[in-house]
Amino acid sequence: MESSEKNDIRLLVGEIVRSYQDHPQICSINERYRLNKETIIDLLEKIRYIVFPGFFETKNLKEDSIEYHIGELLEDIQYRLTKQVTKALFHSAEPPESEEEAQKKAGRIVYRFLQRIPDLRSILATDVQAAYDGDPAAFNTDEVIFSYPGVFAITVNRIAHELHVLGVPLIPRIMTEYAHNLTGIDIHPGATIGSYFFIDHGTGVVIGETTEIGKGAKIYQGVTLGALSTRGGQTLRNVKRHPTLEDYVTVYSGASILGGDTVIGEGAIIGSNAFITSSVPGGTRVSIKNPELQFKGRVSMTELGQEGFWKGNG
Amino acid sequence: MESSEKNDIRLLVGEIVRSYQDHPQICSINERYRLNKETIIDLLEKIRYIVFPGFFETKNLKEDSIEYHIGELLEDIQYRLTKQVTKALFHSAEPPESEEEAQKKAGRIVYRFLQRIPDLRSILATDVQAAYDGDPAAFNTDEVIFSYPGVFAITVNRIAHELHVLGVPLIPRIMTEYAHNLTGIDIHPGATIGSYFFIDHGTGVVIGETTEIGKGAKIYQGVTLGALSTRGGQTLRNVKRHPTLEDYVTVYSGASILGGDTVIGEGAIIGSNAFITSSVPGGTRVSIKNPELQFKGRVSMTELGQEGFWKGNG
Amino acid sequence: MESSEKNDIRLLVGEIVRSYQDHPQICSINERYRLNKETIIDLLEKIRYIVFPGFFETKNLKEDSIEYHIGELLEDIQYRLTKQVTKALFHSAEPPESEEEAQKKAGRIVYRFLQRIPDLRSILATDVQAAYDGDPAAFNTDEVIFSYPGVFAITVNRIAHELHVLGVPLIPRIMTEYAHNLTGIDIHPGATIGSYFFIDHGTGVVIGETTEIGKGAKIYQGVTLGALSTRGGQTLRNVKRHPTLEDYVTVYSGASILGGDTVIGEGAIIGSNAFITSSVPGGTRVSIKNPELQFKGRVSMTELGQEGFWKGNG
Repeated sequence: MESSEKNDIRLLVGEIVRSYQDHPQICSINERYRLNKETIIDLLEKIRYIVFPGFFETKNLKEDSIEYHIGELLEDIQYRLTKQVTKALFHSAEPPESEEEAQKKAGRIVYRFLQRIPDLRSILATDVQAAYDGDPAAFNTDEVIFSYPGVFAITVNRIAHELHVLGVPLIPRIMTEYAHNLTGIDIHPGATIGSYFFIDHGTGVVIGETTEIGKGAKIYQGVTLGALSTRGGQTLRNVKRHPTLEDYVTVYSGASILGGDTVIGEGAIIGSNAFITSSVPGGTRVSIKNPELQFKGRVSMTELGQEGFWKGNG
Repeated sequence: MESSEKNDIRLLVGEIVRSYQDHPQICSINERYRLNKETIIDLLEKIRYIVFPGFFETKNLKEDSIEYHIGELLEDIQYRLTKQVTKALFHSAEPPESEEEAQKKAGRIVYRFLQRIPDLRSILATDVQAAYDGDPAAFNTDEVIFSYPGVFAITVNRIAHELHVLGVPLIPRIMTEYAHNLTGIDIHPGATIGSYFFIDHGTGVVIGETTEIGKGAKIYQGVTLGALSTRGGQTLRNVKRHPTLEDYVTVYSGASILGGDTVIGEGAIIGSNAFITSSVPGGTRVSIKNPELQFKGRVSMTELGQEGFWKGNG
Repeated sequence: MESSEKNDIRLLVGEIVRSYQDHPQICSINERYRLNKETIIDLLEKIRYIVFPGFFETKNLKEDSIEYHIGELLEDIQYRLTKQVTKALFHSAEPPESEEEAQKKAGRIVYRFLQRIPDLRSILATDVQAAYDGDPAAFNTDEVIFSYPGVFAITVNRIAHELHVLGVPLIPRIMTEYAHNLTGIDIHPGATIGSYFFIDHGTGVVIGETTEIGKGAKIYQGVTLGALSTRGGQTLRNVKRHPTLEDYVTVYSGASILGGDTVIGEGAIIGSNAFITSSVPGGTRVSIKNPELQFKGRVSMTELGQEGFWKGNG
């Protein structure tokens, strides 16, 4: 590399480093309590190993040695998750006063979280069953666990929700946005969701922070459980602004249910593309008159192009 | 780590391992025929190397040595795919009676699959052409192969569909859900799709298991080719419940076409957001009268906030 | 492996390699100027390190050594990006006449791109602020940077747009489709987007190549800023076919705004699911009369199945 280019690089470096003073919010320099996103995602995957033992590990699990395997995983999760939670606590609205205090609190939180794993497994077993029962294309429950995006999303959500309830900042949202990336299903870790929950296909689903969902809900692609308006921005923080679904509610694709006072009663079925901003009584089927179709005279079939393919422009 | 904590961990391990007895469906312990998801996805990527030689490998391919390169790849794919298919066969409704039988069957299946690669390439060449022809923003066919999610999704689907047709359980769906993760396009491996197929943008597209699509179809983001209802769950298994699209059909964004008896005739054009539950004759343009727009008096432009940014709440 | 199988493999290899002559467009053999997608995505991530220093690196950054850190990153980016841009230039409509010419041009382009980083940071700081201000669920700006898909997508888009404007083929689209994969947000690198831009949730958003967006825009999931029709295919290349949004426009979920002559005036608010194909005056609220809901008599609540779960079929 020529010396003039070296100088140019130095110039660039200088300008860029100087720009770090202008926008401190988007810099994380000299930050002692910086989270590690990669570690958090790795921990999430390891927790999934424990929740669904044998499905995602690269080695076969044997009953004889299962305790050693789980023990090793758990020790690693406890150690590294405690470190990340310690750091996260310093991002709280009321951060701890000392690192020692933070570590102790983080230790307690992580222990309580790990204690919740058997219960998490019980509820996730109902979600797997719901996916199998609800989808005629499901081959068996293994397929559901291996490949269903809805099962992945609810697994991550239930894990993240536990940490959210235990008062951990940032980490839960990093986890759910990882699931959002992979599945197109965006469930805020604050949402409360009952057992036997099934999201089919799932791409485009949005479930907001203050949503409450009873047991046995079934939700399709493109459904929004959202807020009526967020133009109030941060002034709306912690206000209940997303709907409540009582038990056994089905919401078909593309429907939107909006507003914190909106309650969908037990067993209601909400049809595709319905746009709902007020409560619906239990046991009701709600549908929209689908927009009338207009049929127009025949499309002129222009000649097919070379190799027999359609080159028409309608 | 203190000894009390060690004990705590042991307690946790005990509880978790004990919970593995409660929900055997979500455990895969002592499972001889466990699939390896990572291996399956790696195999899929390697098959893509062979289908589009030179595009995705990390090294440059030379004509002189191409046979060695392909031979090496193919031997590896054959060996590892046969192992995964062998395992998958034990998850069939009628599993093989011995490991030897399974291996032989898997060997035959994989060989037949690999024989299909030249034909797969012929049809994928038409898909690449369709993407280029159909999108004014497409720069050239290289761009289409490198970056178009619709091309990725149909590539994976055509590979998975071959394995599905050859009777391989689980593996095809793991492949298509990997594509769903990456692209937001959810095509069941059972769907039958003709040549010169183009999905533009693609996020939110759902194409169900028993869908049949002719050649020359063009489909936009958010389109559902789905079932009218799946509340019958597993009783609907293997019933034709998704639509048929004859040749040269275009379906614009957000449209839903539902039901196993619904046939969209040759050359029909289905407009954005149409909701269709019965057949449409060939050559018809179907559109909806878009919902009437309501315009309300001027939004009060509240003063712009600090740094010149909009802080208005409408 | 038996010798007959070896022969079979040779047969397969022969057939596959022979098929490479039939479809040269989907082969990249003997291609000197082949791009490396993995390298391009790695470079994109490294550029993100520089733009948001300290957030995504695996090590903590210290002020003392920040210059060395950035210098090292920048030198690596400059070197490898210049190599990829050199190759990409040979895919231009008017490719360079020699490798030397290409290298020089690539060097100039990359240098100009790197010079733009401080400005990129200034505008991205406004996007981060917009996400925080606009979403009541946002905990702090760190959360926004770590996990908001809209912030990820606009970051990648702003980087790719700079390269697009500097005349680099292929690479910008590979970058934005990577973001599309991760976020479900599909923004073409050609789109022009003002400061303080926020996409909430984002899955299903499509923003076409010739879209122009002023400052302060807020866009929700499932919004399309698209073309009226693309059946003209490649004949429409470079024609303005996507809409213009003036400053401070909000577009709620599921709305479509189509057409190159469609201008949404300053401060307009476009309601959910509106379908707009002509211009809207500034400061107007546009909404649709939502499709009337139809309520049907009570769903018969069939008895709940075993284990207390809903087995009803409505």
